[in-house]
Amino acid sequence: MEKLIESLLDGNKRACARLITMVENEVDGYEETLKEIYKHTGGAYVIGITGPPGAGKSTFTDKLVKLIRKEDKKVGIIAIDPTSPFTKGAILGDRIRMNDLSIDKGVFIRSMGTRGSLGGLSNATQASIKVLDAYGCDYIFIETVGVGQSEIDIVKTADTTLMVMVPGLGDDIQAIKAGVMEIADIFVVNKADRDGAKRTSLEIEMMLDFKKDWEFRPLVNLATAENGDGVETTYKNILKHKEYLEVNNKLNDKRLDRNRLEVKELVQRRIYDLVKNIEYSEGIDDLLAKTMTKEIDPYSISNIIFEKAINNKY
Amino acid sequence: MEKLIESLLDGNKRACARLITMVENEVDGYEETLKEIYKHTGGAYVIGITGPPGAGKSTFTDKLVKLIRKEDKKVGIIAIDPTSPFTKGAILGDRIRMNDLSIDKGVFIRSMGTRGSLGGLSNATQASIKVLDAYGCDYIFIETVGVGQSEIDIVKTADTTLMVMVPGLGDDIQAIKAGVMEIADIFVVNKADRDGAKRTSLEIEMMLDFKKDWEFRPLVNLATAENGDGVETTYKNILKHKEYLEVNNKLNDKRLDRNRLEVKELVQRRIYDLVKNIEYSEGIDDLLAKTMTKEIDPYSISNIIFEKAINNKY
Repeated sequence: MEKLIESLLDGNKRACARLITMVENEVDGYEETLKEIYKHTGGAYVIGITGPPGAGKSTFTDKLVKLIRKEDKKVGIIAIDPTSPFTKGAILGDRIRMNDLSIDKGVFIRSMGTRGSLGGLSNATQASIKVLDAYGCDYIFIETVGVGQSEIDIVKTADTTLMVMVPGLGDDIQAIKAGVMEIADIFVVNKADRDGAKRTSLEIEMMLDFKKDWEFRPLVNLATAENGDGVETTYKNILKHKEYLEVNNKLNDKRLDRNRLEVKELVQRRIYDLVKNIEYSEGIDDLLAKTMTKEIDPYSISNIIFEKAINNKY
Repeated sequence: MEKLIESLLDGNKRACARLITMVENEVDGYEETLKEIYKHTGGAYVIGITGPPGAGKSTFTDKLVKLIRKEDKKVGIIAIDPTSPFTKGAILGDRIRMNDLSIDKGVFIRSMGTRGSLGGLSNATQASIKVLDAYGCDYIFIETVGVGQSEIDIVKTADTTLMVMVPGLGDDIQAIKAGVMEIADIFVVNKADRDGAKRTSLEIEMMLDFKKDWEFRPLVNLATAENGDGVETTYKNILKHKEYLEVNNKLNDKRLDRNRLEVKELVQRRIYDLVKNIEYSEGIDDLLAKTMTKEIDPYSISNIIFEKAINNKY
């Protein structure tokens, strides 16, 4: 394990891939590994990319990463797939689209399926960010397909959160607005060659005008990722937000928040483990049988089981 | 409190109402009260009624209860409302429809809002069943509007579970089928004066035929609750199922299962209480600050917080 971590710190791509798989699957000892890796983190800047399905997030990310690669920066991409908990697979389309990126030695791409509930995905994402950070990535992109609450929870802890919109959402923009207004630092109206792009951009600006006391008023720009138009403007906007965070000492706050969320989810995870299958705890059958003769009641049993669960398992 | 319980056991309706409110709102000491009440339970037969919105469950329940009341049996009704967690209110329509029942001294009706997640509603329902049982009800009806998972979880622990269907569901019957096939003991095709009632009934029978090894093959009948047609047949079907449970010693199993579910939910509830706001635990800010200088990592903090949560709070 120590050798694997050493390889990671040396920038070995296969070591990075193996370690992400390990923490994702929670193999024995993964926590100790993460503790060790954590000491070597803090260098990466994390960018969350979200937006409604079909907005062209993958293409946009692709173009943005290629731009960043011209500066010879090392990039990690975690793509969160909207697949069912059963398939856990990646979206073929995304993989194909990002194909020429994946043969770039300076880019590491990983797709993650959205697994069950209870923060499993968030835990795996946070852990993977740490590995990519220690691996030496300058930028880490977290791309989520969709605007579900759990995905928003993940991207909102990024240093910069980018929302990719698309013209012609109509009234849906209202629905999207509610969940996303508070989390996006940068808005991109993609597919700007379509009708209504300027109108969508104006609608976003108007939405943003409703709030008066912005510490950092989100930046909006038009783009057409297909041909690269506007991607550089977005990159500049990201750098403006990054500078704002650094100058105002806000980057630290962002990372504290990210760690706070991670701690919460790690604790929840351990506590949920106590709950699993609790109705089949040892001895519960005998106790339940006694409820039939009123020797005991469900409330007293729940106290017994609760104490047992907590004393035995931690 | 002892006096209140005494009044309950004497069949005092106001004492019953007060005790249900107490356990529903989890006022101090409610657990001790439930333990005391539990000793006096076991006499009531619990009937769960579910089905898609608009199937006429309330009207059907109303007619069924009136029929049972002719035998001078005491009846409790718990109606679970599909209102938002915010309103917590009852559906006016149901209340009006059941109005003449609510002035019947032998009938106790209570509406419950569907509150947050995490079994709060199920806990409150189970506790209310216990109070109504000790109050002396011969039959307790749990009526849920809708076929959501949490509602199914509640009615499936009834002694007899009744599914009210309606003609013209079309393909939706397939969707309903998946969740309900395993839980219903009795099917009623209500509004049988409408086109397609017989066809719906046949479809249900065909669905049931798919499974060969029934211990008790669910019974199906047509009804038109509005004018009372078929309600007596349903009542007889319920009694057949009741007899089956009693003769085959299955009633005990049902009640064991109900208590098992209740224990599980009580334990979960206590554990969830530990999780609430865990990211703001005492001392966590100082620990998080140390993650910035790598003096500590989120994984070690989660262990500290987890142990603290478990040691302090139980």
